[in-house]
Amino acid sequence: MHKIGIIDLGSNTTRLIVMAYESGVCFRLTDEVSEVVRLAEGVGATHRLQAKPIRRAVNALRMFERHCQGTGVEQIIAVGTSAIREATNQAAFWKALHAATSLDLRIISAQEEAYYGYLGAANALGLRHGFTFDTGGGSTQVVAVADRRPVATYSVQAGVVRFTERFVRTDPISKTDLRALRDAARSAFTSLDWLRADPAHTLVGMGGTVRTLARIDQKSRAYPLDRAHGYSLSREALAAIIEQLIRTDHREREQIPGLKDDRSDVTLAGAVIIEQLMDKGGFQQLTVSGQGVREGLFYAHFLQGTDPPLLADPRGFSILNLARLSYYEEAHCQKVAAICLSLFDQLAPLHSYGPWARELLGYAATIHDIGVAVGYYDHHKHSEYLVHNAALLGFTHREIAILGALVRNHRKGFSELSSFTPVLQPEDSTLIARLSALLRLAEYLERSKSQVVQAVHVTLGETVRVVVEAAGDASVEIWDTNRRAGLFRKAFDKAIEIVAG
Amino acid sequence: MHKIGIIDLGSNTTRLIVMAYESGVCFRLTDEVSEVVRLAEGVGATHRLQAKPIRRAVNALRMFERHCQGTGVEQIIAVGTSAIREATNQAAFWKALHAATSLDLRIISAQEEAYYGYLGAANALGLRHGFTFDTGGGSTQVVAVADRRPVATYSVQAGVVRFTERFVRTDPISKTDLRALRDAARSAFTSLDWLRADPAHTLVGMGGTVRTLARIDQKSRAYPLDRAHGYSLSREALAAIIEQLIRTDHREREQIPGLKDDRSDVTLAGAVIIEQLMDKGGFQQLTVSGQGVREGLFYAHFLQGTDPPLLADPRGFSILNLARLSYYEEAHCQKVAAICLSLFDQLAPLHSYGPWARELLGYAATIHDIGVAVGYYDHHKHSEYLVHNAALLGFTHREIAILGALVRNHRKGFSELSSFTPVLQPEDSTLIARLSALLRLAEYLERSKSQVVQAVHVTLGETVRVVVEAAGDASVEIWDTNRRAGLFRKAFDKAIEIVAG
Repeated sequence: MHKIGIIDLGSNTTRLIVMAYESGVCFRLTDEVSEVVRLAEGVGATHRLQAKPIRRAVNALRMFERHCQGTGVEQIIAVGTSAIREATNQAAFWKALHAATSLDLRIISAQEEAYYGYLGAANALGLRHGFTFDTGGGSTQVVAVADRRPVATYSVQAGVVRFTERFVRTDPISKTDLRALRDAARSAFTSLDWLRADPAHTLVGMGGTVRTLARIDQKSRAYPLDRAHGYSLSREALAAIIEQLIRTDHREREQIPGLKDDRSDVTLAGAVIIEQLMDKGGFQQLTVSGQGVREGLFYAHFLQGTDPPLLADPRGFSILNLARLSYYEEAHCQKVAAICLSLFDQLAPLHSYGPWARELLGYAATIHDIGVAVGYYDHHKHSEYLVHNAALLGFTHREIAILGALVRNHRKGFSELSSFTPVLQPEDSTLIARLSALLRLAEYLERSKSQVVQAVHVTLGETVRVVVEAAGDASVEIWDTNRRAGLFRKAFDKAIEIVAG
Repeated sequence: MHKIGIIDLGSNTTRLIVMAYESGVCFRLTDEVSEVVRLAEGVGATHRLQAKPIRRAVNALRMFERHCQGTGVEQIIAVGTSAIREATNQAAFWKALHAATSLDLRIISAQEEAYYGYLGAANALGLRHGFTFDTGGGSTQVVAVADRRPVATYSVQAGVVRFTERFVRTDPISKTDLRALRDAARSAFTSLDWLRADPAHTLVGMGGTVRTLARIDQKSRAYPLDRAHGYSLSREALAAIIEQLIRTDHREREQIPGLKDDRSDVTLAGAVIIEQLMDKGGFQQLTVSGQGVREGLFYAHFLQGTDPPLLADPRGFSILNLARLSYYEEAHCQKVAAICLSLFDQLAPLHSYGPWARELLGYAATIHDIGVAVGYYDHHKHSEYLVHNAALLGFTHREIAILGALVRNHRKGFSELSSFTPVLQPEDSTLIARLSALLRLAEYLERSKSQVVQAVHVTLGETVRVVVEAAGDASVEIWDTNRRAGLFRKAFDKAIEIVAG
């Protein structure tokens, strides 16, 4: 695998991510180092970078460069955003940077920044129609997305460091300052006329502030999944967090679960910017993207030659990506998928599920065994753990919970999902039981992993009859499958017999 | 990696395990298929294998062979134990086997069976002095181990299928039959004079019965770790389970957590055999080995040329094995280990810990990042999950819990261990906090992964002073490390400052 480092020097944070990848085939994040250097600290109206922040930033960048040298990174892409873009004394920064590193840092325009953020979020969430926004330290970028493509871009100097320095002058914030902060945030989006809520349009948020808000909300609700990516944050929840941040001083904020120390002072300004953005468009929800500019830069590299560099099918890609990284047995998994999808289709009169359920079942079949990479014993549980914690793209949390349950139930017992109730729909427990039952039948029909089963022919009646067409002897598989059919009987409330053809 | 299949045809179960390995370097279990074929069913006093059990066994073996063919297994080692060894009609079995498969199944003697069981358990638990026993379907093997080598072997036809058929004739068992079962089990070990409990001698148990008993006991106690290997089962707990099995019929036994359906009928006989074995030697505890004959056959192959085929250092080997399978960054981990062990040594006056704690700290440093294989974000939590679920050899459950806590605490927060109280000692919470603090200092001194730090020089005083000798600029590392020193201050109740040398 190749290794590439992506560095993003922002107004608040500078970050390095390292990706190991094979072009267009698979990738994984192997490292992330982030330093809150606050490059924009004290720039004020003159836009002069101060000596201390420059030193902090250059020190961090030098450390990132050493990191890349020490870990076999072959190529580095480094970009700088609003703080350096707007600096009236860029020369001072370049001098310090070139004295300490050999990094080739490129200043990207606000439009490029918006574009790479969009690329990251659109790939990571499979966004088709809607808007992305990225609230950084110095500015906020908004992109309108239609049919997966960026169709309009808006950039404004509303950033969390910038607004914190200007408006959050007491701890807690004074009423007057809060009013001024809200007014400034509102004004920032006055001319953003194309931002409008619509049931078919998703609003996607990126950046440290959005992730922090998601974590605070999740902690307050004892949310069952430990992932911000794909999380749906409501306008109401945002209002509650803002209320909390207004009422607390920095000591009290230390106690807020989900709020990290180095975000404690700037999150209020960020939250108010997002509040005004949502209100401008009339949005009641936003979806958090864990990926943004850095990942966008990576996708542009990873998908060179594709314009725009979008994964054709982020969900399917990320399932295969996960399977490959977990040493999956391709022939076995494909056979299990083929069998259970055939059962699904032939049993349609019994379940009436559509393409969405079918798609999830196929994914679950592809990755049902990935937990073996953790350890063979109880690998169905490890598969669920991997599903919950891997970087799957384009799935809602509900879908993640369903996928996790399916891979877990492909063998052994049947686990109740009570802890996932907050992300599931009432009908999902039946869905999970039924799809799990089909996956389990398929797994046992392919127990020998020898692809002996060629086809299954289902006859519906008092008893469901599955005739197995095999290329050779499949008697043990058929015998085992009959023994494991209890889940099917329970889930479909139907007798079943599996017989040789 | 190569792939080898090991098949073991027992009196109760026949199992296939598949190992992927590089000779002498690393290995992992990639598959296990087991069928309860009950080959010994109905053999009675004439030792004639019955037609149906032969058919079941051959069907399973054929399926195993197809499994190996379908998954790229290059070599198969297949052995049969007491059922086939003692059969007066072996020819009937061979005929059926050769008609259906091309497996080269070797009947091993009771001595060989005992030896391979010992090999599996001795490697998997790092056993130095003590005894191993393996209670199978047809017989029980006992081996005395001195200085890691087998010094005496005992084999007796006391097996769970055999004794169940002879003595468990009603459901629940009658008082008369229970007495007869106990008498027979006691008689089986009458001449086993060298089996004697001693504080320096561990009694190790293998086989499905022992694992089942461990699981039942764990479930009844809400035990925090989900692993049978290395579990310590007390004589008292065994007595309680036997009581429960005596009082229950097969329907009630279905409700016993940890007792699988296909073990429901034979576990009582197995438990009584083990009870009598423990009482014969006066043991109050036994340690469960999750590995036995099959793994012993594997080790003999994996360690060809070593006699006996024992890993020189099972603990160290399995840590490196896990690190390698999880794509660890060797140079980084070695540097983190070197730094934290140097801190450990120089801080000895403050903690007074000995070689045991030092060994665990070194292991934790080696595998602290393995969770990145699951996903980068929260990889410290994934590292803990992997430690809890990987096939580590020769560690007690207390050590597993400590190792898990150390890797989890190498970055971010500090997790309380209340749920692991059942396997920890009261002093372990301080131990974990202190070792975690050292690991975290080392991790941040090597944050750039560029091995910039050459040495650390500690001066003890009112404040602990760590002078960092670096090959180049380590200012960011030193700055970061000072920021992360909170855990050290808390754990050692000491101020600390890290400065450049």
